[in-house]
Amino acid sequence: MIKKVLKFGGTSVGSIERIQHVAKIIENETKQGNSIIAVVSAMAGKTNELINLSKNISNEFNNRELDVLLSTGEQITSALLAGALTHLKINAKSWLNWQIPILTEGSHTNARIINMHVNQINEFLKNKGVAVIPGFQGIMSNGDITTIGRGGSDATAVAIAKIFQTDVCEIFTDVDGVFSTDPNKIPVAKKIEKISYDEMLELSSLGAKVMQASAVQTAMMYKIPLEVKSTFTNRDGTKIFDQENIDYNKSVTGVAYSKDETKITVIGVKDKPGIAANVFEPLNEAQINVDMVIQNISSDQKTTDITFTVKSEDALKTIDLLKNNKKIEYKKITKNDKVAKVSIVGAGMVSTPGVTYKMFRALADEKINILAISTSEIKLSVIINEQDTLHSIKKLHSVFELD
Amino acid sequence: MIKKVLKFGGTSVGSIERIQHVAKIIENETKQGNSIIAVVSAMAGKTNELINLSKNISNEFNNRELDVLLSTGEQITSALLAGALTHLKINAKSWLNWQIPILTEGSHTNARIINMHVNQINEFLKNKGVAVIPGFQGIMSNGDITTIGRGGSDATAVAIAKIFQTDVCEIFTDVDGVFSTDPNKIPVAKKIEKISYDEMLELSSLGAKVMQASAVQTAMMYKIPLEVKSTFTNRDGTKIFDQENIDYNKSVTGVAYSKDETKITVIGVKDKPGIAANVFEPLNEAQINVDMVIQNISSDQKTTDITFTVKSEDALKTIDLLKNNKKIEYKKITKNDKVAKVSIVGAGMVSTPGVTYKMFRALADEKINILAISTSEIKLSVIINEQDTLHSIKKLHSVFELD
Repeated sequence: MIKKVLKFGGTSVGSIERIQHVAKIIENETKQGNSIIAVVSAMAGKTNELINLSKNISNEFNNRELDVLLSTGEQITSALLAGALTHLKINAKSWLNWQIPILTEGSHTNARIINMHVNQINEFLKNKGVAVIPGFQGIMSNGDITTIGRGGSDATAVAIAKIFQTDVCEIFTDVDGVFSTDPNKIPVAKKIEKISYDEMLELSSLGAKVMQASAVQTAMMYKIPLEVKSTFTNRDGTKIFDQENIDYNKSVTGVAYSKDETKITVIGVKDKPGIAANVFEPLNEAQINVDMVIQNISSDQKTTDITFTVKSEDALKTIDLLKNNKKIEYKKITKNDKVAKVSIVGAGMVSTPGVTYKMFRALADEKINILAISTSEIKLSVIINEQDTLHSIKKLHSVFELD
Repeated sequence: MIKKVLKFGGTSVGSIERIQHVAKIIENETKQGNSIIAVVSAMAGKTNELINLSKNISNEFNNRELDVLLSTGEQITSALLAGALTHLKINAKSWLNWQIPILTEGSHTNARIINMHVNQINEFLKNKGVAVIPGFQGIMSNGDITTIGRGGSDATAVAIAKIFQTDVCEIFTDVDGVFSTDPNKIPVAKKIEKISYDEMLELSSLGAKVMQASAVQTAMMYKIPLEVKSTFTNRDGTKIFDQENIDYNKSVTGVAYSKDETKITVIGVKDKPGIAANVFEPLNEAQINVDMVIQNISSDQKTTDITFTVKSEDALKTIDLLKNNKKIEYKKITKNDKVAKVSIVGAGMVSTPGVTYKMFRALADEKINILAISTSEIKLSVIINEQDTLHSIKKLHSVFELD
């Protein structure tokens, strides 16, 4: 008997037919004698529909009530799936956040799961019951409903896998697994069979939308084996393990990209100690994530230019904060949102010399201009002009033998 | 300061604009210093939408999960209304069934409210907070979500009025109040200013849909003053009191009708003691409500014909049960669903001689055939052919000076 968490995303439960199909997947697991906790998202489109209702009332809709509102999305799916399972004569029950309970801390709409009670559900699983749990939500110690941020159902699934000590956590989605790059853009993209948590983490934070980054992080921390697979095909998905369990025969596992970047340059900043800290202090306070940073000494050697990237949605606010920043003096601020970030990711990079050179050479050969560079142990990212994105990905995918 | 329960039905909260309008009604109450608990239904159409989802999965959808599903309807309205109130700078909070909690007993989809905890909400009201509570639902002692039957939000409102000891319970709906008869059919129908619980009960059980009968019953039992009024006009509604608080200057308060009746006759039943009990025993077991009963001795004086009415939705099942009833012998069963029940209701009837005669004479004058009669202290009902319904109502409305 294997104890499993199966998580089904919004498109996987996007219609009655799909919920019935998910019930069949679970039925198949129970026939194999496996013990199943199903975690479900809201039906595709539901959360946006609810958010829109709230926005029609107020652009600053009360966050406590927003959580009460949004949590109905997963509650609906949970009831429908539990009902579909009992229709198949499977002993199934939905367990809502407050019934378990799933305890969270932090603020409304952005809480963190800290614990959950396991006895009742473990008892139910022992009696061959299937527990269906809504993702994305929990309660605070005062009994208020909380939600844990968009994509939070992944986090719920991994937290359940951790606290219920399941053997595996399977993330069912609308793609076959994790790909070497975006299969919609690059037809030669290949499904990755096995990938380490670190690589997966880099890929998801770089825009590969298959799994929420913080959920991967939790899985990594507690060494919870993950598998990302399709609800709609019967194929093996991508297994996500600890690095040490993977044999690397390639230096690079995948190529990721994001067009959602804006490059901002503060020109002519007075060059004195602590200036970078002064530039970024208000951005940090506003929880704006600054990605790549480059500092150049300008020609007169008394001032400097600071270039960095932020998510495009944060660009205007960032410039506002810079302009109101009394601690810095500068000549002007420029902004370029026609840029993209392209990254190669691979746990094998660190042990393979020359990966960096190979990447730069490949881009140079194609006359693609690199605007900024950032590196980590398992990732190498460059900022380029947006129009070169596809071209770069194709070239890198081929150069690193991923085709 | 008056402590009030305000209950808003499905059409009253049927859109964002309407929810905002309801928030304004509540704002107006708080400006007058009143202490408000708002009870809300699901947005119009929502409950049917959820039921349809469940029916697409199974015609015998698991009742426990159906309650989990349906309860999201009122939860959504509660969050939206609480959000709309906080947008108006009113200190408001939604309190879900399990947060209060509202304790129920009985079966899923048909539970009864037995108690609720008051301390937290009373504390909140004292601090000028507006509590928003979803109608129609509660939890069982085991923590399962329950619902209390269609129209159950009225029952929630009255139960809250009782347990929180509010001064009044106002039922906001899409009509101006209770009318002397159906204003959609009889334009001269008049809004009733004051009506007794008993009369209201007869009117609602006779098809006047303004308020759920069992909620009126609870209000009567605990002498909770009710007012039924429109969400969309600023007019006074209908006040519902104890009989002793009403001066009756008319013998009849209203004329009600229902076309949802089927007349069934069991012909040639062997006439012996206990035969009626034998006929109705299986109907009682199946919880089929038998309304009017007439027993005729047939011409040969050895057999009898038993005629009675049931709700049309129960007719087929009733005939089935009669046919399978081993305890009775009969010649044949006939059924007529082209009948209607027309009733006059009035607490003044009992003290006014001749009301019965006046009714029969009026119908006879119009050549309307009476198929069955039943009487109570404050009600007189007749079964007539369906095509005579409107004609009868008009005549009775005029004869009893309700125009």
